[in-house]
Amino acid sequence: MIVVMKPGAPRKDTRTVIGKIRELGYTPHTIYGKTRNVIGAIGDERGKFVLHSLESLPGVERVVPILKPYKLASREVKPEPTEIRLAPGVSVGGKKLLVIAGPCSVESEQQMVETANAVKAAGAHVLRGGAFKPRTSPYAFQGLEERGLKILRKAGDRAGMPVVTEVMNPMDVDLVARYSDILQVGARNVQNFSLLKRIGKSKRPILLKRGMMTTITEFLMSAEYCLSEGSRQVILCERGIRTFEDATRNTLDLSAVPVLKERTHLPIIVDPSHGTGHSQYVKPMSCASVAAGADGLMIEVHPTPEKALSDGPQSLTFEKFAELMAVLKPFVAAAGRTI
Amino acid sequence: MIVVMKPGAPRKDTRTVIGKIRELGYTPHTIYGKTRNVIGAIGDERGKFVLHSLESLPGVERVVPILKPYKLASREVKPEPTEIRLAPGVSVGGKKLLVIAGPCSVESEQQMVETANAVKAAGAHVLRGGAFKPRTSPYAFQGLEERGLKILRKAGDRAGMPVVTEVMNPMDVDLVARYSDILQVGARNVQNFSLLKRIGKSKRPILLKRGMMTTITEFLMSAEYCLSEGSRQVILCERGIRTFEDATRNTLDLSAVPVLKERTHLPIIVDPSHGTGHSQYVKPMSCASVAAGADGLMIEVHPTPEKALSDGPQSLTFEKFAELMAVLKPFVAAAGRTI
Amino acid sequence: MIVVMKPGAPRKDTRTVIGKIRELGYTPHTIYGKTRNVIGAIGDERGKFVLHSLESLPGVERVVPILKPYKLASREVKPEPTEIRLAPGVSVGGKKLLVIAGPCSVESEQQMVETANAVKAAGAHVLRGGAFKPRTSPYAFQGLEERGLKILRKAGDRAGMPVVTEVMNPMDVDLVARYSDILQVGARNVQNFSLLKRIGKSKRPILLKRGMMTTITEFLMSAEYCLSEGSRQVILCERGIRTFEDATRNTLDLSAVPVLKERTHLPIIVDPSHGTGHSQYVKPMSCASVAAGADGLMIEVHPTPEKALSDGPQSLTFEKFAELMAVLKPFVAAAGRTI
Amino acid sequence: MIVVMKPGAPRKDTRTVIGKIRELGYTPHTIYGKTRNVIGAIGDERGKFVLHSLESLPGVERVVPILKPYKLASREVKPEPTEIRLAPGVSVGGKKLLVIAGPCSVESEQQMVETANAVKAAGAHVLRGGAFKPRTSPYAFQGLEERGLKILRKAGDRAGMPVVTEVMNPMDVDLVARYSDILQVGARNVQNFSLLKRIGKSKRPILLKRGMMTTITEFLMSAEYCLSEGSRQVILCERGIRTFEDATRNTLDLSAVPVLKERTHLPIIVDPSHGTGHSQYVKPMSCASVAAGADGLMIEVHPTPEKALSDGPQSLTFEKFAELMAVLKPFVAAAGRTI
Repeated sequence: MIVVMKPGAPRKDTRTVIGKIRELGYTPHTIYGKTRNVIGAIGDERGKFVLHSLESLPGVERVVPILKPYKLASREVKPEPTEIRLAPGVSVGGKKLLVIAGPCSVESEQQMVETANAVKAAGAHVLRGGAFKPRTSPYAFQGLEERGLKILRKAGDRAGMPVVTEVMNPMDVDLVARYSDILQVGARNVQNFSLLKRIGKSKRPILLKRGMMTTITEFLMSAEYCLSEGSRQVILCERGIRTFEDATRNTLDLSAVPVLKERTHLPIIVDPSHGTGHSQYVKPMSCASVAAGADGLMIEVHPTPEKALSDGPQSLTFEKFAELMAVLKPFVAAAGRTI
Repeated sequence: MIVVMKPGAPRKDTRTVIGKIRELGYTPHTIYGKTRNVIGAIGDERGKFVLHSLESLPGVERVVPILKPYKLASREVKPEPTEIRLAPGVSVGGKKLLVIAGPCSVESEQQMVETANAVKAAGAHVLRGGAFKPRTSPYAFQGLEERGLKILRKAGDRAGMPVVTEVMNPMDVDLVARYSDILQVGARNVQNFSLLKRIGKSKRPILLKRGMMTTITEFLMSAEYCLSEGSRQVILCERGIRTFEDATRNTLDLSAVPVLKERTHLPIIVDPSHGTGHSQYVKPMSCASVAAGADGLMIEVHPTPEKALSDGPQSLTFEKFAELMAVLKPFVAAAGRTI
Repeated sequence: MIVVMKPGAPRKDTRTVIGKIRELGYTPHTIYGKTRNVIGAIGDERGKFVLHSLESLPGVERVVPILKPYKLASREVKPEPTEIRLAPGVSVGGKKLLVIAGPCSVESEQQMVETANAVKAAGAHVLRGGAFKPRTSPYAFQGLEERGLKILRKAGDRAGMPVVTEVMNPMDVDLVARYSDILQVGARNVQNFSLLKRIGKSKRPILLKRGMMTTITEFLMSAEYCLSEGSRQVILCERGIRTFEDATRNTLDLSAVPVLKERTHLPIIVDPSHGTGHSQYVKPMSCASVAAGADGLMIEVHPTPEKALSDGPQSLTFEKFAELMAVLKPFVAAAGRTI
Repeated sequence: MIVVMKPGAPRKDTRTVIGKIRELGYTPHTIYGKTRNVIGAIGDERGKFVLHSLESLPGVERVVPILKPYKLASREVKPEPTEIRLAPGVSVGGKKLLVIAGPCSVESEQQMVETANAVKAAGAHVLRGGAFKPRTSPYAFQGLEERGLKILRKAGDRAGMPVVTEVMNPMDVDLVARYSDILQVGARNVQNFSLLKRIGKSKRPILLKRGMMTTITEFLMSAEYCLSEGSRQVILCERGIRTFEDATRNTLDLSAVPVLKERTHLPIIVDPSHGTGHSQYVKPMSCASVAAGADGLMIEVHPTPEKALSDGPQSLTFEKFAELMAVLKPFVAAAGRTI
């Protein structure tokens, strides 16, 4: 932590800051500059949040954090990449690209069984489908809840695929874990710390989606919440951030892939369906995700997108999904991966 | 809902869209333009979310929603403003400006009792203080939990003030409601729909903070979640949105006040402490909030900001808070209100 | 400038950075931390931009600027506020609130003369009107150019008001200065450095609008361009920034007013017409601007907004403008100003 | 254009709007809905900007534009892609990927000649280098101006490469066109309409960079300014937009590539150097750009990035650039292109 003093701040203000830093258990180190002084606080970073409050002292201009606030998620603590096993022969974070596919919402058994078979045939590894749906409107379809979980499980079992679904309420973690191989935390819950703490205690791998307004540092801090509760199996998912641009539903931040690869050992996948919001952009952005270094993709697929109860405009038909999987292949090879 | 066809889309595509609109129970109405056709779907807006999926049909360029998606929160359903009674003689949404004040976190009984007395003496009506703290880092101070609730209650009772505190977990709603007069939903939980539904069933007034990336429409939809569960007592709170500007912690969106006043009957207050993140900007932005038409203010006050366990830089001292209350007076009068 | 080394960077990397800092003429000062080192570069800030490139050296994590990059615009160089005289009895930056009013575009002599008389009667001090219009579309009305300048001048003279109008092209600065008392630089040209340099040489006061994505620091750097060319008369104008919120045309960043007041001696006015984009929000946001500490307002007024060739939705009628001026009065008094 | 009436607006308000639409030369078409009416205005889109002002009429809630405002830039007017010839054997917009490389600023003859040879040897097709530099600070290096143009030309000629450089001032267009094969408009000038109009009259191909705050629609409108002045050779360049994320200098919006490919026939290239701001992210984002469908890349290369007078942190060394070109190859092939 670096405390920047105002230009011309009286000497006693600097002395007060130095005293407070010591009081809080850190070692102060002052650089006397031409127009202003700068004081470093040396020590273990864990409790340094309190140092922020020094900004209230007279003569202080601002407090600049230097260290990254995450620890267990960082490459500094664990330099080698984490590979997470999801089912026999299915993992993420290694050489093989992971493909998760399925509809936004579980709507019926027929829909799920058909979709599972189609995406499996085209090469997908994990089946997705929402049973608890976080919808902006209370009047929109809210999901089939436990009935949806059962359908998802059945469809996955029949096709021989592990499944992933979202959990929204800390109270539902055990219920969802009973049916699903992977527990998803949605973008709107990325800073729902009660949920993160509860889910971090589960034995299931966690798929954590970046929020629309979450910085990369905050995203890693959310992963850190799960890790600090004991989980070692957090998969990060970039799914677009909110910007002024409205040609796409969100702005897919693909630079986040190399930035995350540099900072964390956790696997990173990309969801170009939510990231763009329009099915015609899913193919190019899937290829781009692989080229940027993503460990996997999460793609929305629906038998009849124009009838989907949610997210129809961004869902691929079975045919378009098979086409995507074919187009992806040379990019996967170019990235030095298999699929 | 308006479906815009692509220029030169074949007639049969338009016919298919018309058929689907009918199938979904709406009445289609087509405008044949010079370069493209536009089809309106007339009918009750409640289920219109499904219409979005028509964007997947061939020949469709995009689907434009026309109606506002909220209902119970809207002025159309309830034109007169809602005044919410918080305690005998304390309400919000009427002529009198509401002032909520207190520290970010409940840290100790002494801190709370001193603060309650000081803010009460200066003219505040409600005491705030966090017992469950949503912190970006799992290593930051997480709040005193139930012990904090007890301290808050005691300090409020002694000073004769109702209290407000945040609830983060649906499981804690009853616990928090036992101690607190008002239940706060924090910015990070504005789209935590499990929490909104649960809290909407409570009898306590709800203080709903806008999220950092929540549009005004989404904000009203979150209020609608509470209202649709039975609550009639939702107070909206603007507290800054996330933008590229970093001179302030957030960008306080004061235009949201007149926009919300136009669209909803619910009371709107402003939190300039989180909105700016720096104590020296709290005074001018409080005055500006009142001038923009806000029904109340929520201000962070701490006996010794430089020792605060959270949000020190944006907290006012007792002296600064009293000064603020004095400076506010003529602006409150200019706004045709009392305090 | 602070150079933050990577954790565990070898000693020789730190030595290389220290050597480079010396080579560039600064004095290095190293803080040896527990996990990483931090090196301060002490010296005159003017040329420090080159120090940024040190980020390319091995072992360097990032370079953190400490000093504010503006000089002539800063309070450190000139602590007392700058008051700029615009015409006999008309100035900005002192106790009296400045009100600029008029249409977005000069459309005809009748329109301008009528408007000038109406806004003058209601209490405005300066007449605005665009002759060169920066329009997003080449097919939109581009302004009456020199003919517009003549009409503006005539209308201002008849009503006895100084006038302000935008200049877009460095080649037109002399032409516009012949007719206009104040030269406006529009939001889209806030980083048109050729224009800023040219206009900074003019003797006319400059009205510099903040860009839609300009940080406050960048905004002051743009003012610095004018100041460094010799101008001492730069008026800053907050007019809304671009965010994800679409209920308003832009998000009026009123916190910028106290932030700018703290950092610079230059006067700051607010344009709530562009800031909100809808006439019904102009009144509350004008009051809020005054309460936040603004030195003036810039308001769009048109005889018949529904016929305006540009920006009709945000323009006030004569009647609404007179009403605004009346409503403003107690807020102006509350702010300790006159009007 | 669709005019949405307020719910319950009196019949006479609807009639007034219908009358105004007719008066402006468009054909009104009304959809009478259950809660509100919606009126379409049918006719040529060119002058429809005036229709926006109808929002000022009583009873009108808002005006929704339906048509895309660009014409010459659109696929509707010219469905087949435009290929622009830059020099014998060098073009963009066809099958071959274009690679532009060179330093941010022209600093010396030696620097440029060395760089030209190195990037040519590694496979680049066009040499870049700035002679007029748009710098945020007036105290930062502003470029060598005409001397820089001469050095750039010489370095390009010796290596047998066409060159590109930025022009900032309409007055300098002829001067820059004398030395440079391609005229670049920088991100900060994307809505400098005086410059766009002037440059649109030049015979040189134009490289138009997207602004930090420019929507895709606005970006195409800026291209339309050049096209409407006669140019047929506009190359679009995505270079990152400004968001809340600060791990990267900007957020590279790669989804803009497929969106632009869908809407316009003009070639689209990507600048991952400015887009990310850090040299270590240039390689993955270059691969991703190609996979997303970009027609070319623009890469900053400097002999000694740590000594660069501008943008050192994002510049590649010769060695890193050669490595990038090698890594790109299989992605170029996967995209069905040559290099």
